[in-house]
Amino acid sequence: MAMNSTINDPDPRTQREAALEGTVTPEMETVALSESIGPEDLRKAVAQGRVAIPLNIKRRGTIPAIGIGRGLHIKINSNIGTSPKHMDLEEELEKLEISERYGADTVMDLSTGGDLDSTRKKIIQASNVPIGTVPIYQAMVEHEDIRDIPAEAMLEVIERQARQGVDFVTVHCGLTRGAIPHIKDRVAGVVSRGGTALVKWMIHNKAENPLYEGFDDLCRIAKEHDVTLSLGDGLRPGCLHDATDRAQLHELKVLGELTQRAWDHGVQVIIEGPGHVPYDQIRKNMEMQQEICHGAPFYVLGPLTTDLSPGYDHISAAIGGTLAAIHGASFLCYVTPAEHLRLPKVQDVKEGVIASKIAAHSADIALGLPGAIERDTELARARRKLDWDRTVELCLDPDKASALRDDSEAEGDECTMCGKFCVMKVLDDDGE
Amino acid sequence: MAMNSTINDPDPRTQREAALEGTVTPEMETVALSESIGPEDLRKAVAQGRVAIPLNIKRRGTIPAIGIGRGLHIKINSNIGTSPKHMDLEEELEKLEISERYGADTVMDLSTGGDLDSTRKKIIQASNVPIGTVPIYQAMVEHEDIRDIPAEAMLEVIERQARQGVDFVTVHCGLTRGAIPHIKDRVAGVVSRGGTALVKWMIHNKAENPLYEGFDDLCRIAKEHDVTLSLGDGLRPGCLHDATDRAQLHELKVLGELTQRAWDHGVQVIIEGPGHVPYDQIRKNMEMQQEICHGAPFYVLGPLTTDLSPGYDHISAAIGGTLAAIHGASFLCYVTPAEHLRLPKVQDVKEGVIASKIAAHSADIALGLPGAIERDTELARARRKLDWDRTVELCLDPDKASALRDDSEAEGDECTMCGKFCVMKVLDDDGE
Repeated sequence: MAMNSTINDPDPRTQREAALEGTVTPEMETVALSESIGPEDLRKAVAQGRVAIPLNIKRRGTIPAIGIGRGLHIKINSNIGTSPKHMDLEEELEKLEISERYGADTVMDLSTGGDLDSTRKKIIQASNVPIGTVPIYQAMVEHEDIRDIPAEAMLEVIERQARQGVDFVTVHCGLTRGAIPHIKDRVAGVVSRGGTALVKWMIHNKAENPLYEGFDDLCRIAKEHDVTLSLGDGLRPGCLHDATDRAQLHELKVLGELTQRAWDHGVQVIIEGPGHVPYDQIRKNMEMQQEICHGAPFYVLGPLTTDLSPGYDHISAAIGGTLAAIHGASFLCYVTPAEHLRLPKVQDVKEGVIASKIAAHSADIALGLPGAIERDTELARARRKLDWDRTVELCLDPDKASALRDDSEAEGDECTMCGKFCVMKVLDDDGE
Repeated sequence: MAMNSTINDPDPRTQREAALEGTVTPEMETVALSESIGPEDLRKAVAQGRVAIPLNIKRRGTIPAIGIGRGLHIKINSNIGTSPKHMDLEEELEKLEISERYGADTVMDLSTGGDLDSTRKKIIQASNVPIGTVPIYQAMVEHEDIRDIPAEAMLEVIERQARQGVDFVTVHCGLTRGAIPHIKDRVAGVVSRGGTALVKWMIHNKAENPLYEGFDDLCRIAKEHDVTLSLGDGLRPGCLHDATDRAQLHELKVLGELTQRAWDHGVQVIIEGPGHVPYDQIRKNMEMQQEICHGAPFYVLGPLTTDLSPGYDHISAAIGGTLAAIHGASFLCYVTPAEHLRLPKVQDVKEGVIASKIAAHSADIALGLPGAIERDTELARARRKLDWDRTVELCLDPDKASALRDDSEAEGDECTMCGKFCVMKVLDDDGE
């Protein structure tokens, strides 16, 4: 089998390098099969940078490869991880399991509390999906004061995590000193943890962002392990007022330059994006990113279409995420009901994953992707026949669907919405 | 005051008739004030049929008037009511109270179980928002067999409800015999309760829809009480496969004719729409309705952008509803997490209202409606200052926002998401 041959004879090239040299890797074959497209078409897309396959060389053959990019099904990411105020490894592993069960295509470990190396190791071992991280968090945790983090320590944590098997890393390389003056025009300021740390570091040290200055070294690490760079948006807008402002656009332009530089190194790239964005600005944001970043896959956090929905931010994110996916995003980072309020618990993770899945699936259908609408129509056929078992089985969350139905006075094949006026039964009597 | 003068000297004209005669009614003044537009502009919109003010003559001066139509804030409706398998008046009154508290602009009483006249009377008495109904439900409940309902009984229940003070009624007048042959091409068939009843009636009695045949009589009843006709979509698609099909479009064309006929009677009209619609077909649906129905306000149920979300249909509906509101809909009927599974309970009603409110508010912001984004920016300013009390107060659901935060190990002004790495604090230290 192709997968075993990879293990026996590891290919040191990144997916991008292999694609550029005309090789269809076993991972490309896996992705092409699951996406119902031709392997050669997929290879071309990887070579052009339009598709990324985030998978550390160390993990090849151990988990199924997935592809992220336009023309493929929209992927969703779930964030898990401890915080300084809440650390419970078992709970994080349960969040991982729930994320995978309800359809997360990747999981990011954003831990900032407890033993980070050990937590990450266990999460990678337990996972069946690509794992991402934000390595600067570890640098922040390992130093008393953000301002004192040595530039080389920022690269060291990335290399340490790459050796562990991390598949993709968020690196805020595009947040440069030139953007700092624009921050004062904002209502919400900087809302990315990595972003605040780097701005503070640059101001205090009167120096350029070490992840920008050291970008070539960073690319060499990424290339060695085929870690996909997720170029972070340290200046994503934290409220609608700040959307598409000069700070955000300054960073986006730098990300466009860095995309090409990473590609020149043979490194795979995805680009991170907003954030909080009014609905009428989302399409423009997606189109700008696609143009400025040369068609690299776009990974969005939300976007949230209102700031008023704490407790329900997964819904705002699903609204914005669907529109974003229609117009250019390929990868949706979930948002949970706990966003802006506290670290998510297991139930929040589940709700966040399902809301993102609804957005991604709705977009897949609208984009006409192969196989997308078939399950919907199968569910509708089962419902028409009042085949509740099959209907429930086809739902995104069979457990909740069945629990809601059970928690009612339903008898036989009707439900308590219509009772004897069940629309599926009224016309059957007439044979229509 | 204008409102009292209405009570002392009731104007027998509908809002439409008054508008056509150049009168700015007290209700138009109320709506214009709450929408921050000129009373004369509003009068013109009412005269043109682009805005409806659903308010029974009997209820004028007793509850605040609201306007529905393009250029005004997007309105949302909550459905409550008993079913044959679940009847509890206190629970329905609690649903009414919750609906109003979380921002429903109207409430429909869809009761089909228990004493319908008495239930409706109590709901109208307790309400501070316009109340709608689907009168054919009562005709169905009051007759052993749908097929035996006399044509005049369908009008009689409408008149009875109008006299009670109902502000708007869903009437499936546009579902005519010509549409029936198209139903066989569907996967989900007919999913409107009123629609199934009328199709069954027409097939059995080999006669045209009595609500179509008797449309002029119906308009005379509506005119007398200024009950707004909500022209129902008995053939709305019940799954994505059936969206924008010949059955749906056949009915929509008839609704276009009926809109003009109702207007000629001086009657206010809104049009009901789908349903389950793939995201890429929603804009076209809205534009077709606006053209075919001469700009009459469009009232949509969802639309749901996937069939796979039972348990989370409020989220699919929020995704579709936002897009619909951007492109033509003025009025969103909520969908609850219980949709397709059982009659909603109080908690479902709350979640449905909030999801719809997120959709409506996101659209208001995107449409640039007066005052829409200000509260969002005020919340962002409070968050930037870590003023949790004010932040929570500004949320759509302050209770849930504060409960989620309280259910964590948060101390002081941080939250457990970032803890000491709180983005609002990192940069404050530097005075940035």
